[in-house]
Amino acid sequence: MAFTEFRPLDDKSLIEYIKATPSLSSKIGDNFDNLTIKEVGDGNLNFVYIVIGASGSFVIKQALPYVRCIGESWPMTKERAYFETQALKEHGQLCPDHVPEVYHFDRTMSLIGMRYLEPPHIILRKGLIAGIEYPLLAAHISEYMARTLFCTSLLYRSTTEHKRDVAEFCGNVELCRLTEQVVFSDPYKGSEYNRWNSPYLDRDAEAVREDNILKLEIAELKSMFCERTQALVHGDLHTGSVMVTLDSTQVIDPEFAFYGPMGFDIGAFVGNLILAFFAQDGHANEGNDRKAYKEWILRTIEETWTLFYKKVTALWHQHKDGSGEAYLPEIYNKPELQQLVQEKFMKDLFHDTLGFGAAKMIRRIVGVAHVEDFESIKDASNRATCERQALELAKILLKERRNFRDITEVVSAIKKIQS
Amino acid sequence: MAFTEFRPLDDKSLIEYIKATPSLSSKIGDNFDNLTIKEVGDGNLNFVYIVIGASGSFVIKQALPYVRCIGESWPMTKERAYFETQALKEHGQLCPDHVPEVYHFDRTMSLIGMRYLEPPHIILRKGLIAGIEYPLLAAHISEYMARTLFCTSLLYRSTTEHKRDVAEFCGNVELCRLTEQVVFSDPYKGSEYNRWNSPYLDRDAEAVREDNILKLEIAELKSMFCERTQALVHGDLHTGSVMVTLDSTQVIDPEFAFYGPMGFDIGAFVGNLILAFFAQDGHANEGNDRKAYKEWILRTIEETWTLFYKKVTALWHQHKDGSGEAYLPEIYNKPELQQLVQEKFMKDLFHDTLGFGAAKMIRRIVGVAHVEDFESIKDASNRATCERQALELAKILLKERRNFRDITEVVSAIKKIQS
Ligand SMILES: Nc1ncnc2c1ncn2[C@@H]1O[C@H](COP(=O)(O)OP(=O)(O)O)[C@@H](O)[C@H]1O
Ligand SMILES: Nc1ncnc2c1ncn2[C@@H]1O[C@H](COP(=O)(O)OP(=O)(O)O)[C@@H](O)[C@H]1O
Ligand SMILES: [Mg+2]
Ligand SMILES: [Mg+2]
Ligand SMILES: [Mg+2]
Ligand SMILES: [Mg+2]
Ligand SMILES: [Mg+2]
Repeated sequence: MAFTEFRPLDDKSLIEYIKATPSLSSKIGDNFDNLTIKEVGDGNLNFVYIVIGASGSFVIKQALPYVRCIGESWPMTKERAYFETQALKEHGQLCPDHVPEVYHFDRTMSLIGMRYLEPPHIILRKGLIAGIEYPLLAAHISEYMARTLFCTSLLYRSTTEHKRDVAEFCGNVELCRLTEQVVFSDPYKGSEYNRWNSPYLDRDAEAVREDNILKLEIAELKSMFCERTQALVHGDLHTGSVMVTLDSTQVIDPEFAFYGPMGFDIGAFVGNLILAFFAQDGHANEGNDRKAYKEWILRTIEETWTLFYKKVTALWHQHKDGSGEAYLPEIYNKPELQQLVQEKFMKDLFHDTLGFGAAKMIRRIVGVAHVEDFESIKDASNRATCERQALELAKILLKERRNFRDITEVVSAIKKIQS
Repeated sequence: MAFTEFRPLDDKSLIEYIKATPSLSSKIGDNFDNLTIKEVGDGNLNFVYIVIGASGSFVIKQALPYVRCIGESWPMTKERAYFETQALKEHGQLCPDHVPEVYHFDRTMSLIGMRYLEPPHIILRKGLIAGIEYPLLAAHISEYMARTLFCTSLLYRSTTEHKRDVAEFCGNVELCRLTEQVVFSDPYKGSEYNRWNSPYLDRDAEAVREDNILKLEIAELKSMFCERTQALVHGDLHTGSVMVTLDSTQVIDPEFAFYGPMGFDIGAFVGNLILAFFAQDGHANEGNDRKAYKEWILRTIEETWTLFYKKVTALWHQHKDGSGEAYLPEIYNKPELQQLVQEKFMKDLFHDTLGFGAAKMIRRIVGVAHVEDFESIKDASNRATCERQALELAKILLKERRNFRDITEVVSAIKKIQS
């Protein structure tokens, strides 16, 4: 049975597919006895099957030509699986410790075979809701972001390599358009897809749609998202795209990857940590007031940026005589000048990060796709309090991001909202 | 005789080529009697032949696989002719009044056939050196820049169209690299290609190579040049790429075209007008002190920006409900908000323009390619005075561009240098 045309798989045809695909069947020792297959896709877009045999396992992810959580009424190119694979491979080469290995890709079937991130790996967002501390999270994710972003930018690459890759990822335009719509547009206008915790947040959602300064700032960020080919970004780096154990951190799901602003990834991650922070009061109970956990989240936010800063500047120093064409060593030839340009670069990136982070927070509260951090808070009024605090902070960050000098000032602003 | 492989043409083989090419031979009524052919390429890169017959004419431009003014030791892809053609066609469609029509393109031969801009058309730079006023220049060039830049940006285009075009022009990477080197790098470091009016400007050239703040600013502009796919820019819009009569303005030579920052084109044009201004004292003589002409140049600088501003905002208003995806009408839905976003957009663009304009001025004084405006000043000491004033202004513009609120302040700064 050949798979020469696209078709959505089910448990049965999946077995046929694996039998016909040596790179997959070899992973389970070509042994099809007692195979267990489970569809676990809890994401918004795709189908994910875990395949476990007696002597091995893998995951199959298939893209269908529409948005899963909406249905066939919202078509979406299944070519996204191709770009996801390209990004997994490129980021995986740069940071193998934090990206699952790709075993197989089939463009016709829009199907990726990759390493199964076995238990106790869980989605980070679920860990944050459960109140689990991950002591290595900031170290790992900063390592992932520093390596993938630095090494796909002109700090590391030649213009020739850069433009070739930019051109390739321009093909992922449909996914970029989806982000443009749901992050940078819909929350700021009436849209059939928008939703919010009504009636509690009716006025807040309306305020977002009426706020001229917010609209001015979101326009600048949208242009940067559309026009600035700074690095190969993951494109969807929220806490639902990270799987963790106490000592492992793995980034999955880069189907939105394209050449965009670095701050879009860093902001996505940090913004979602801030959402997790503001959701904590909704998860507190008599046994656990979550106070210590909130402190850990704030420390993790701070460390993520601080370590990212250190790692990028270290990579920069390490590769300053390499093939990166942005800052030639013959021009940036003195330590004080190198420091000057790095500080300027990082300051701008910090402000981009805050802007994009804020945009990602806002859209999770008044846009189409919400986060389980809030959604799992049963009492709607309690939930509204949490959401409103997050929204308030996001608006401050988006409007006043250029006034923040460092991440400790951001942490202070977060704390102030709750004081 | 077939032209199935690339070869450089000469007067003789050119005739064979025209005979074998109906789209060209038809332009001269298939009449090869009394044909005159003249190679006039005075540019830096390519060969240009004017072909005039009894009943028609055209121009043939051929790219050879190296930089003409340097020689075969500096290889340069002849594919640039393809991108020049694409840009001539795209800009020509958007602004047919100011772009010569393309009659023919042969990718194998890297050869373009286009309208001959017949006398009295001359290169604008030569007109500026001769002290000729062009009363319609500001109106025409602002029209060209407004239409080509606006209509190839996300103010007018959908993301889908934009990314498709961006990907295509990523192919013109070698020409982008040349600009990166000669505009953004070489002037700020030692380079075998750099030259300047020595010994007069030895200290000035050295000062450029030692100026940390200048290097900080040029890095930001270089990144914008490499990363920001704002619009299909001409890429080489100096006064040598414009042919004029008293009532016609034609933009030629967009072989450096790519998706880059709008300010790069506007800055190139304005920066070269400023160079022309500072060269005037070197051309003054008893019969003509050039005072009135200098005033005309300053008015033209002012009008170019002012008219460009008006035309872009008019196009924006006219197309606000069109397919451009940057500013959706449902979000930017009130007149005062529209004004707010336009003012912010234009303010940022103004500062980009000053930065890129300054960079283009600097490189013409201490980099590889100089301008005839200065080179034609015979007395080297007199020339040095002119060049030094231009350099001084350029450094102010590059470092302090964000403090200039409008073009009249730029004109004041120009005047102040000479006071
Ligand atoms: N390599 C993997 N190992 C284990 N579980 C995975 C793996 N990839 C995905 N999953 C599970 O499938 C879910 C959906 O995967 P994801 O790539 O995020 O799909 P979507 O693009 O639809 O969001 C994840 O939340 C995770 O629970
Ligand atoms: N269409 C044209 N009509 C008349 N003269 C032209 C035309 N195109 C080019 N030329 C002449 O040839 C010269 C070089 O052309 P240009 O396109 O600038 O080549 P280069 O890329 O080598 O700079 C111009 O300065 C101009 O004098
Ligand atoms: Mg996902
Ligand atoms: Mg791009
Ligand atoms: Mg996904
Ligand atoms: Mg030229
Ligand atoms: Mg040229």
